[in-house]
This record gives sequence, C-alpha cells and structure tokens, in this order.
Amino acid sequence: MKRVLLILAEGFEEMEAVIPADLFRRAELDLTIAGLHSKIVKGSRAISIEADILLEDLNDLSFDALVLPGGGPGAKNLAASEKVLSLIESFNSEGRIVAAICASPAVVLAKTSVLQDKKACCYPGCETQADDKSITWGNKKVLTSDNIITSRGPGTAKDFALTIIEKLSGAEKADLVAKAALFPYLR
Amino acid sequence: MKRVLLILAEGFEEMEAVIPADLFRRAELDLTIAGLHSKIVKGSRAISIEADILLEDLNDLSFDALVLPGGGPGAKNLAASEKVLSLIESFNSEGRIVAAICASPAVVLAKTSVLQDKKACCYPGCETQADDKSITWGNKKVLTSDNIITSRGPGTAKDFALTIIEKLSGAEKADLVAKAALFPYLR
Repeated sequence: MKRVLLILAEGFEEMEAVIPADLFRRAELDLTIAGLHSKIVKGSRAISIEADILLEDLNDLSFDALVLPGGGPGAKNLAASEKVLSLIESFNSEGRIVAAICASPAVVLAKTSVLQDKKACCYPGCETQADDKSITWGNKKVLTSDNIITSRGPGTAKDFALTIIEKLSGAEKADLVAKAALFPYLR
Repeated sequence: MKRVLLILAEGFEEMEAVIPADLFRRAELDLTIAGLHSKIVKGSRAISIEADILLEDLNDLSFDALVLPGGGPGAKNLAASEKVLSLIESFNSEGRIVAAICASPAVVLAKTSVLQDKKACCYPGCETQADDKSITWGNKKVLTSDNIITSRGPGTAKDFALTIIEKLSGAEKADLVAKAALFPYLR
C-alpha cells in the first residue's frame, strides 16, 4: 500500500487539502495528515481540521509522496519551516513524489532546489513570488515534471489529486475514484 | 449579511461539507458549522473537522439557509435526529432555503414533507432510499425547486454551493467567487 504524507500549516486552503485527502482515502492510499505546529489546524477560511499526528511526532518517513496544499498564509508557514524544506529535498533526492498546489509551488517548492530547470504551475500571479528564476511556469491545470507534480488552485485540486493517484496506483484506479465521486476526469 | 447553517454529522462526506463551507466564506456569507452530536466530527474518509458550535447550543436560529452534506452514514445520522427533521420543516415552512446533496436529499429531506411533489436530485442510486414516492428525481448537477436546492455528489458540490451563493448574494458574487477559486461555473 502506497503511503502519502499531507502537511497542514495554519492558513492552508481547505479545499486544496480536503479534496486530495478524501480522494486519496477513496483510492485506498495510506494517507497521513500531519499538522505542522498543532494537531488542530485552522485553514484560510477558518475551517479547522484535526490532523492525524504532529509532524514532529512522525517517526517513519518512508512515504511515497509528499503533498502540500496552498493558501497564501499556509504556504508562507510551510516555507518558514526548515523541517518541511528539508523533507522536500530528501523526497526529491530519492525520486519520491513531491506535489504542491496554489501558492505552494512558488512560495515553498521554489525555496528549495527541486524546481530548478523544471516546468511547474501555481495560482495565477504567484509565479512572481518564486526566488528561483530558472523555473518555467506553465498554465495547465496540473504539470508533471518527473517526480514533481504542481497545480493551480481549488478548482484544479481534484485533477491534482487524481494525477497523484494515477502516478501511485495507475490510471484505472484514478478513473474509478473520479467516477464514484462524480468528477469528470479527462486525461 | 446572509446567514447559513451547515450541519455536520458523524460520517459526513468531507468534500461535500468543505467545498460549500469554504466557498460560502469566500462569498462573505455568515456561515455557522454546527456539529450534530460533537464539536469534532469525523467524516466518511476519517477526516475530522472542528465545528464552530454544537447544534444544541445554537440559540439564534434565524438563518437564511440550511445546508446538509451527504455521505451515507452522515445522512443516516442526520435523518435519525428529530431536531434536524424539525429544523428542515421550519426552514421550509418560512420559505427559507433548504439545501442537501448526495445521499441527503433521499435519506434526510425525503423523511420530511419538503420534497412532496417537488423535483430533486441525489447521488445516483440513492433515489430508491426515499420513502416519499411523490418526488420526481432528475439527473442534473443541481436542481432548484422554489426554496429547495439539491445536488448529487462531491463532483457537483461546487455547483451546489455556487447555486446557493447565487440565490443568497446574486449571480455576480457567485461568478466572482467561482473565478477566484478557479472553478468553471457555467449557469
């Protein structure tokens, strides 16, 4: 069973966390939702979600994918965490999936080396916040560049999640999950 | 400012609760998330959300809309609550919006009088669970029948939410919210 780690930081965008988390569990991926600084984490629209565990209490980090929701303040809080930045680097150096959506590709991933000379996408306008100027920004709903998967916002969160599911469990599984949730998913 | 009440029962479908809740707050509606039996409520995919208040602690019930997410077990728990059923009847008798998605139109609303001789929709296949045989079931993403708004599942939750926003705050507001969240919303 493939293992996925999704990190919630205060100010995360609720739809960008819950749509992937829900779809991952529908796909029978072994998902752990980790809170960056607290077990109950308040999102950008004041909806609080209880994480499964605090990030610092996680011992077994052998996940197959790391998933970072966006939300302006949430992305800033992720980017301010040395622990998160080093997790991103270590997942990437081992070829494991690093996935980010909305503000997080530009605000979090671009603070590390993982987008160097890669093609990525983010919430429209956030591109300017990236320090790394070697990144090619695209405007697709989801962009896959080797092990890096990026996406744009709440309206693309299901495409983002289904792309990750497809990469971990195959297209047939992604199609089944999309169909049961009544999502059109046209690859 | 229009007021919306969304009720979470154990086993609610997470996307069907969070997509509307998030979009309502983006639309600057005054949303209260009430927990039916607990403040922290676990969804159908084991994602727990902290409600703003316990339903029984709500004193001011002068909301403009009542919104019920689906999820098989969540809908059954809503339907088992006399308090929820009487709230539905009282909202409807005053012409206030009653909105339900997924299993909830057939499992919850159909246990009351509000769908009598109305057109409604629900998660495909759930129609057979409705006791009331006078309901005409349609297969649109969202069906509006006077003050009753029904919808089908996670994949239609944003259309459901945007229809409620449109009814409460107008089409221009719904369009702005949809656009900012990168949702296509074609009325």
